Amino acid sequence: MSSKPSDSPSLPPIVEPTTRRSFMLGALSAGGALALRSSLAQGAVSGGPNGASPLPGGLDPKLFALHSRVPLTLETLRSSFGMGVVTPVSRFFVRNNLPMPTEQIVADPETWTLEVEGVRAARSMTLAELKTLGVATLSTVIQCSGNGRAFFEHGPSGSPWQVGASGCAIWTGLPVRLLIEALGGPVSRARFLTGTGGEKLPEGIDPLDLMVERSVPLEKGLLDCLLAWEMNGEPLPLTHGGPLRLIVPGYYGCNQIKYIRKLACTAQESPAKIQQTGYRMRPVGHTASPEQPSLWRMPVTSWLQGPNGQDAPLAPGRVILHGVAFSGERRIDRIEFSQDDGKSWREADWIGPEIGSGAWQQFTVSIDLPAGRHRLVTRATDAAGDTQPAERIENERGYGNTAWTDLALAVVVGQANQRSKKPVAAPDLSQSAPPPQTAAPIDLSPQGEAGQALFLEAEPSCGACHSLAATGSQGTLGPNLDQLKPDEARIIGALNQGVGVMPSYRERLSPEQIRDLARFVVEATAKKP
Amino acid sequence: MSSKPSDSPSLPPIVEPTTRRSFMLGALSAGGALALRSSLAQGAVSGGPNGASPLPGGLDPKLFALHSRVPLTLETLRSSFGMGVVTPVSRFFVRNNLPMPTEQIVADPETWTLEVEGVRAARSMTLAELKTLGVATLSTVIQCSGNGRAFFEHGPSGSPWQVGASGCAIWTGLPVRLLIEALGGPVSRARFLTGTGGEKLPEGIDPLDLMVERSVPLEKGLLDCLLAWEMNGEPLPLTHGGPLRLIVPGYYGCNQIKYIRKLACTAQESPAKIQQTGYRMRPVGHTASPEQPSLWRMPVTSWLQGPNGQDAPLAPGRVILHGVAFSGERRIDRIEFSQDDGKSWREADWIGPEIGSGAWQQFTVSIDLPAGRHRLVTRATDAAGDTQPAERIENERGYGNTAWTDLALAVVVGQANQRSKKPVAAPDLSQSAPPPQTAAPIDLSPQGEAGQALFLEAEPSCGACHSLAATGSQGTLGPNLDQLKPDEARIIGALNQGVGVMPSYRERLSPEQIRDLARFVVEATAKKP
Repeated sequence: MSSKPSDSPSLPPIVEPTTRRSFMLGALSAGGALALRSSLAQGAVSGGPNGASPLPGGLDPKLFALHSRVPLTLETLRSSFGMGVVTPVSRFFVRNNLPMPTEQIVADPETWTLEVEGVRAARSMTLAELKTLGVATLSTVIQCSGNGRAFFEHGPSGSPWQVGASGCAIWTGLPVRLLIEALGGPVSRARFLTGTGGEKLPEGIDPLDLMVERSVPLEKGLLDCLLAWEMNGEPLPLTHGGPLRLIVPGYYGCNQIKYIRKLACTAQESPAKIQQTGYRMRPVGHTASPEQPSLWRMPVTSWLQGPNGQDAPLAPGRVILHGVAFSGERRIDRIEFSQDDGKSWREADWIGPEIGSGAWQQFTVSIDLPAGRHRLVTRATDAAGDTQPAERIENERGYGNTAWTDLALAVVVGQANQRSKKPVAAPDLSQSAPPPQTAAPIDLSPQGEAGQALFLEAEPSCGACHSLAATGSQGTLGPNLDQLKPDEARIIGALNQGVGVMPSYRERLSPEQIRDLARFVVEATAKKP
Repeated sequence: MSSKPSDSPSLPPIVEPTTRRSFMLGALSAGGALALRSSLAQGAVSGGPNGASPLPGGLDPKLFALHSRVPLTLETLRSSFGMGVVTPVSRFFVRNNLPMPTEQIVADPETWTLEVEGVRAARSMTLAELKTLGVATLSTVIQCSGNGRAFFEHGPSGSPWQVGASGCAIWTGLPVRLLIEALGGPVSRARFLTGTGGEKLPEGIDPLDLMVERSVPLEKGLLDCLLAWEMNGEPLPLTHGGPLRLIVPGYYGCNQIKYIRKLACTAQESPAKIQQTGYRMRPVGHTASPEQPSLWRMPVTSWLQGPNGQDAPLAPGRVILHGVAFSGERRIDRIEFSQDDGKSWREADWIGPEIGSGAWQQFTVSIDLPAGRHRLVTRATDAAGDTQPAERIENERGYGNTAWTDLALAVVVGQANQRSKKPVAAPDLSQSAPPPQTAAPIDLSPQGEAGQALFLEAEPSCGACHSLAATGSQGTLGPNLDQLKPDEARIIGALNQGVGVMPSYRERLSPEQIRDLARFVVEATAKKP
């Protein structure tokens, strides 16, 4: 299944770690970087030998940024997320601490064997046996601790994730509680649930330095943890830890042990480096220590995804953006968005079913965006009253970034005359960076300003049928207003009586609104040479 | 995207219709048929040219039964369903009334155009424009009206679905209500919402005979219908109606218009044959009539899926089975199962999140099964108090089968010593029935072989109108060729001059091609008893 990625010339190039500074610089002179990403995506389309995808599991390289090939690290592009609440396997980020085991381990999943220790009747069990003990299905976000790392300024090591190291899935498996109970319960003094991954470790290195073995509080393990063999209704694929993975709902991804081969109730946290000193909130410049807080429960966060899940350019006018909000083990109470960097906030609209407290909830923001660059931020508050902060908690490894200032979405809305199917700048729209430069403003009278909003907000929107550069409208059903340059009387007449297929707006707008709208069109088109 | 299926030896053979009687017999002496299915699945693994899947959309042939190639009709195997509530696109059944449009229409979805009629401001809108008017996300089961047809004894025409013409997905799109409101509301006297599919209709045939155009009550359309462009968080694929499909939550699949190109508020139901006389509960032996009830809302039903979603053998002892229950527009109140054909019932256990009243709810049944054959049935009751019946409603076309006696799951549990990794009998566990009887291979002359490809590739495809077992075609507009057994002269005459609604192929095929095609039909039908 997996080809040798390093031999494959058509793989997307590795995205180099970027500090916030270089990222911003890049954004200011974005042409080059964007052209690169664009050519990268085109390169990816051609695929590997025989047109097959060069990524494991048949994943489409166009949907991801590749941070490293070994171990495989794929970030879901901000524009690849849909609005369906559940992130499909085909769009789910991939993060591995070590090279993956071979596909052979998922070819015959039923014979996969799990050692269960730290229980009164310790033994090993095949997956086929585990399936006879019970089953549950739950939804949870899985997110890398380093999601949002790209925005730290001190250049922490690790994949420079933006927001795409996160996904929400439905998991099916055996509740850990039922397994532990079936084997007589935990030994006394057990305080942690410790899972060990099935990766093959290289010889000659102390296993504790490399092995993927993590501990969570035993109380959590018995509350809602799952040994999962299914993801989104399919047998768990190798890229996501198949044939068997530990799911710790609401906790960071490092705890969700893939290819799990041992599960133990233990008195202490794992002695492995990944537990003792890895994945902890370590102050910048400090050395790692087991006293620093472990990356367990995920705090409240939210962000907007790429516009419409498409890499098509955004047309000026009304746009509906969508985003996600979640908080480990808690429901979300409120989600707000701001167009002025947090000076003022409005509530967003929920969308889609709520599928559990571990899952994310999706929301939409419906706004009018003229041509230019825009920066949009969101802020979530969870059921316990925690609100997403404006500033990140600085830490050496760049973990746990929930700062709404960092997770902002930058949207570039094109000029009407820039319209093309696949513009060079398209991928820009999907990424949260670029500091907006605005289009040359038009001088409008107060009456014209009032009319400007109506141009797009009238139902049906004028821009749906007419092109008008000042609003970025590109409708082609009716005349191009920049060319027609109609006078005020003509516009008012058309609005009152309708013309051809154009309906009358007499019952949709007041006489004053009709005058404002006509004034705006006159002023907007008069400015055109 | 789609290869030429007729060239692909690895496609699964077509599943023949089975009556209830042959089904029971088959279940009792299942070995042969099962060995066949097993080798079939192994054959499918090898795939098409370059190892690519021979099915459109990259679908895995091992997960489906192929009922017809043109139009494409794929049934999800009972063992292919997972427990994740949402059926992934990779496992979702496919049913088309006509050959699908080309993949080109989903390559640039934003420019897809929908005509909206029967509103005060009728106009056409691109998908990009529709996306600015609003968005919603909902879950619903989509199910073919003929799901369960295989169990009718009178041998109704159409695909012999067992239980796999059903799936539950999350759909994202524009609420129809918002679209209609934006265009000024319905014209007066409108009582129906009528959607028209974008399939290309062959020339020379009355469009009303073939077009996919269906009507539902306008009240329903304004309540919760959706113009969907996303399925399970991915852009809607062509196989499921992309770029745009009408979703009518809780209604049968025939109403969920794919590739929708026109949506209209109408005073009458569509004059198309598919609405006037198709998809109605017609008594056996009667002719079709618009007075017969239309296949709209789906009544309460439930069934058990294949054990564990795996094709591994069932070991004797404790087993956890899973199933689905749903009722159009209603929640499910109770789900029971019985091991003694309904003499006694026990409640099953719910599993997984509830994701809306249109979705199905999943349940599990935990039982001890000794070696041998078992028959398990389930019975659902919805929030309005309707309970799934024991007996089906007999009807000419085999629609709406919710009888729990028919939808029973047959489980074969092996002896302990029979357990092996890939036993011959494994696929039996996943199927509640079917002794697929295979079509005997056909010996074709070189001329007949040349004609075989033409049968499906001619425009319009012969298979779109005619049934022919040798090609898996199930068209019903023209005579069934297996029954008609036309001689060569008759076929050549019909191809040259046309017959009734059948167009002439004189300008579409060369004289040599017409002779090849005729030769093929003679050879293919001569072999049938």
